[in-house]
Amino acid sequence: MGGDHAPEAVVRGAIQAHTEGDPVVLVGDERVVRERVPEGVEIAVVHAPDRVGMGERPSVARSREGVSVRVAAEEVASGRCRALVSCGNSGATLVSAVIEIGKLAQVGRPAIATSLPRLDGGTLRLVDVGTTTDASAAQLLDFAKLGMALARVEGVERPRVGLLSNGSEPGKGNRLVREAVEVLETLGPSFVGPMEPTSAFEGQCDVLVSDGFTGNVLLKTAEAVIGMLGVHVGRRVRASRRARFGAWWMQPTIQQVREDLDWRSRGGALLLGVRRPVVIAHGRSDADAVRAAIGLAHYACDAGLVVAVQGALASPHLPSGRSGEQA
Amino acid sequence: MGGDHAPEAVVRGAIQAHTEGDPVVLVGDERVVRERVPEGVEIAVVHAPDRVGMGERPSVARSREGVSVRVAAEEVASGRCRALVSCGNSGATLVSAVIEIGKLAQVGRPAIATSLPRLDGGTLRLVDVGTTTDASAAQLLDFAKLGMALARVEGVERPRVGLLSNGSEPGKGNRLVREAVEVLETLGPSFVGPMEPTSAFEGQCDVLVSDGFTGNVLLKTAEAVIGMLGVHVGRRVRASRRARFGAWWMQPTIQQVREDLDWRSRGGALLLGVRRPVVIAHGRSDADAVRAAIGLAHYACDAGLVVAVQGALASPHLPSGRSGEQA
Repeated sequence: MGGDHAPEAVVRGAIQAHTEGDPVVLVGDERVVRERVPEGVEIAVVHAPDRVGMGERPSVARSREGVSVRVAAEEVASGRCRALVSCGNSGATLVSAVIEIGKLAQVGRPAIATSLPRLDGGTLRLVDVGTTTDASAAQLLDFAKLGMALARVEGVERPRVGLLSNGSEPGKGNRLVREAVEVLETLGPSFVGPMEPTSAFEGQCDVLVSDGFTGNVLLKTAEAVIGMLGVHVGRRVRASRRARFGAWWMQPTIQQVREDLDWRSRGGALLLGVRRPVVIAHGRSDADAVRAAIGLAHYACDAGLVVAVQGALASPHLPSGRSGEQA
Repeated sequence: MGGDHAPEAVVRGAIQAHTEGDPVVLVGDERVVRERVPEGVEIAVVHAPDRVGMGERPSVARSREGVSVRVAAEEVASGRCRALVSCGNSGATLVSAVIEIGKLAQVGRPAIATSLPRLDGGTLRLVDVGTTTDASAAQLLDFAKLGMALARVEGVERPRVGLLSNGSEPGKGNRLVREAVEVLETLGPSFVGPMEPTSAFEGQCDVLVSDGFTGNVLLKTAEAVIGMLGVHVGRRVRASRRARFGAWWMQPTIQQVREDLDWRSRGGALLLGVRRPVVIAHGRSDADAVRAAIGLAHYACDAGLVVAVQGALASPHLPSGRSGEQA
């Protein structure tokens, strides 16, 4: 029931995933959901009479009965479903996941991890991008471990952790960054230091750790700049006959770049530190984005993300599994 | 003597400005500077035997004698020059400016303002992007007033102030943002609220206020994304014969977009809150960027930036000059 294009986009994306072999259970107002499911499509719907609006306080998920994201989290907690996907109010998703599914031992607060493309072809995992706007240095260490676990699940054997800062020189950073540098040193050689966004995008780290406020500003700045550039270039091209001709020839490549940059294909962000995979999809998600988010949730289950995260957190210093070398 | 391409780029950019009617005095190691000035060019050089390196602590400008940026600030303080331009260590420039030139009354700490292009053709002034990594809500109000004064000097009659945040809804933001919202309300209708980067770039405000850490991360993320996109698109184009053909036709437009995005043409950032105009140019500045920075410094003098800032700070609540209405 959540997201800017719900329930239409959510139902369509879910049906697509379901029929393509990624099974889905829909949770929401049964009548509203059912009437959007075409005849002949067999998909389970669990009834939830209420919902949390995008502008409402996340705590509503705690106090109100029968809220759809909370009911969905119950389905996961009970084992009837194996992962939760939502493109609704992300705070409400967090609250529901923590109450129903529960946090992993040693996790103070779960974090949201977003994957971004790097210039060297690799992936940059940015943690946290939203749950903890005022983080402590100890929480940043947790985020680092969560991000490293994710990177390892995705095939990076020895993930390098960077700390988002305004410069890599000593003395740079705000108070939190300077404190966190000392705490992150406990990761040993996995911690490659504080760094500017450019260095991270160039590939100097696999996991970029940040408080949720700054991480979110980075993410939204990147989205804003990409969107602005697209509009600006479009205007310049339309203003020139010659450029329009050139652009016609470049069409397939332009389309390719558009797809490369399309956040929808990435399927959303992962809530790390809870007992089952939870995918927080973009509020703007259309059916394709919902379909990708469901794919990501199934991938996280199949790849054993939660077990990997649990393992990483259990090892106090070197989550890269090289603690033997250290000793 | 400061900057990645000093002294060559600085001397060349300065000579260009000087011969084009924007007079310049160079400050640095006289022998080193003089030997880079071509014969026939008449330009004053003030000797400064020492310099602050890019990796050195800014406080070096306080403790060491004869450091070039400090000597340059003395020249401005004495009235022999009217503005200071540096592309060296920005912290050392700040320290030198505060010691020699002095802060305006009511300014706790000067702020660095960077101007960015907006999607609607206007200018977004981002304050602060570096001096105060851990700001208080009261300091953010100072930054707002400094930014509004700059906007007014640049012809915006009633500048709108936004507060950089991860969302505009109540409850969003980190602790500082939530505190600052209340303090900024004293600006009256000039304060248009907390907002995401996208809204600011779209044109919802003329001044975007932030602590220096987050502002710097925004700025560097924007630079990183623009750089990355350029490289990525270039790769995609080179990989396709058809796209290469199209790109040939688009060449003039591509060149135009490149110039639109070129930070060098903007001439650097302004240090607001000191008694004379100070331009902090990019460390990567080449001769063109240095020339633009000198142009910006002269513009700030001619436009009466410092007087305007002083006036804005003297009015406690409504720096837009509408305090009469308020009473």
